[in-house]
Amino acid sequence: MLLYHFGFGKYGPAKRGKRLRPGLLLCVAGAQGAAIEDALDAAAAIEILHNYSLVHDDIEDNDELRRGRRTVWAVYGIPQALNAGDALCAISFLVLTNSIAHHSDERVLRMVRALHEAHATMCDGQSMDLAYERAGEVDLAAYSRMIEAKTAALFGASSQLGALCAPCDGEAVLRYRELGRAFGMAFQIRDDVLGIWGTLDATGKVSGNDIARRKWTFPVVWALAQPPSPARDRIAAAYARGETLDNAAVGAVVDALDELGARDAANQAAAGHLAVVERHAVRQVREFLLSSLELAST
Amino acid sequence: MLLYHFGFGKYGPAKRGKRLRPGLLLCVAGAQGAAIEDALDAAAAIEILHNYSLVHDDIEDNDELRRGRRTVWAVYGIPQALNAGDALCAISFLVLTNSIAHHSDERVLRMVRALHEAHATMCDGQSMDLAYERAGEVDLAAYSRMIEAKTAALFGASSQLGALCAPCDGEAVLRYRELGRAFGMAFQIRDDVLGIWGTLDATGKVSGNDIARRKWTFPVVWALAQPPSPARDRIAAAYARGETLDNAAVGAVVDALDELGARDAANQAAAGHLAVVERHAVRQVREFLLSSLELAST
Repeated sequence: MLLYHFGFGKYGPAKRGKRLRPGLLLCVAGAQGAAIEDALDAAAAIEILHNYSLVHDDIEDNDELRRGRRTVWAVYGIPQALNAGDALCAISFLVLTNSIAHHSDERVLRMVRALHEAHATMCDGQSMDLAYERAGEVDLAAYSRMIEAKTAALFGASSQLGALCAPCDGEAVLRYRELGRAFGMAFQIRDDVLGIWGTLDATGKVSGNDIARRKWTFPVVWALAQPPSPARDRIAAAYARGETLDNAAVGAVVDALDELGARDAANQAAAGHLAVVERHAVRQVREFLLSSLELAST
Repeated sequence: MLLYHFGFGKYGPAKRGKRLRPGLLLCVAGAQGAAIEDALDAAAAIEILHNYSLVHDDIEDNDELRRGRRTVWAVYGIPQALNAGDALCAISFLVLTNSIAHHSDERVLRMVRALHEAHATMCDGQSMDLAYERAGEVDLAAYSRMIEAKTAALFGASSQLGALCAPCDGEAVLRYRELGRAFGMAFQIRDDVLGIWGTLDATGKVSGNDIARRKWTFPVVWALAQPPSPARDRIAAAYARGETLDNAAVGAVVDALDELGARDAANQAAAGHLAVVERHAVRQVREFLLSSLELAST
């Protein structure tokens, strides 16, 4: 099941994820002077932990497709897929503890703790996301808290672990965590934009799916926070219906979002978070992060 | 959701689990000279990790009741319950890393690694258990591999972590792990017996439920390994049906198991594993383990 999920061996070749989190970790570690060997275990652990969350999210969100292939639960059923996700979590941390070959016990333990802190925070964020599915309205503050926890925490840990591998200490580690979180916020908002305006090709997901299921994405939350107008009210009415939206209804919501300028607003919000990256990241980290977002948006 | 699961606060009072795993950990730590404060974080971590597996197992097994109360997924739905289980996993390891207040980094890291090794092994065992649901037959060797992974590994880790808290080293740690595993084998076989012949009161589960769902428990696997006889063949026929058994069919299987002496065979197999405990455990650990099994079987 794990080989299937990753599309390895006889299950491949499959479209790979972008591997942004291990990429960020390795980039930070390298920028701070680590040899790549000192950061590979942590990078693998981050990517495996991310995939654990994907396998579980796909069950929780009832998603049958990811990267253009059937999800683990769609192929093997929910019980085996849930358990396979759990196994990925265990494997992630076993891989991380392998880094004792390159680091002191103290440093590996700090990495384990940082990654489990992000793990706990991700669960908080996912719980909010699930609870919001039944909420009548979600405001921008609640949306921000949700993506900070659900998405930004693991990017924060990726950057933090890269710094810990270097090895950085004290303030530098915390600054890298903040940098990763800021990037994570921008990433999620851009991902929300892709989920509405992207194509099947770019994401492997059905475009507009987030709207069909009345997900609280940045463009929608932002649009509903605008003063009453026909376009805003059409979105509100569609989201108030309490059922999955059909293609025509999704199209009407996307039109209303376009009319209000929600896509630009989302891109501006993402740019606001990216300003932290532009101001504080060293050149190679900045270039890695900015170019990875460009890639994701085309 | 987590408070609900444990029956804490406004959700209580609720019947508590037996807490055998943290009990074993504390007993081993104490027997090897640790102060209780040095082992409490690890004991809490073990119990929380066990409950993570329960929350997920209940989803995977479609169990709506545990300890006489509705399971987390039955109350909150599968998506939130799955995620709540994930949160328990993260919390378990955060609690374990809290023990740096009492132990060296090296020792805490060994505990983290040992517990994640057990975690990975539990997932292996659960995967076998789920796969066996569709198997036409499971022999005693396959059954043993399954419970070694699914149940005995965490008892092994409980005992091992108790020794690591003491702090023991080298061979002593491995011997305690083996002791815990042997107890875990006995525990699971006795639990299988309770699942067939126990009452609702003792376990909080519906008696005979394991047979209704054609679970591969020790008594059934043992019975099917006996030479052909009318009683054995009635069990084989019931398990070959491919559907949930009704009360009459369950009763017929239990009668056939009784006729073959499957209950005694299970108790003897459990006693074989307990002989390891009787031979190798120091007095207070031996007494704790034997008395805890007595308790569970009445």
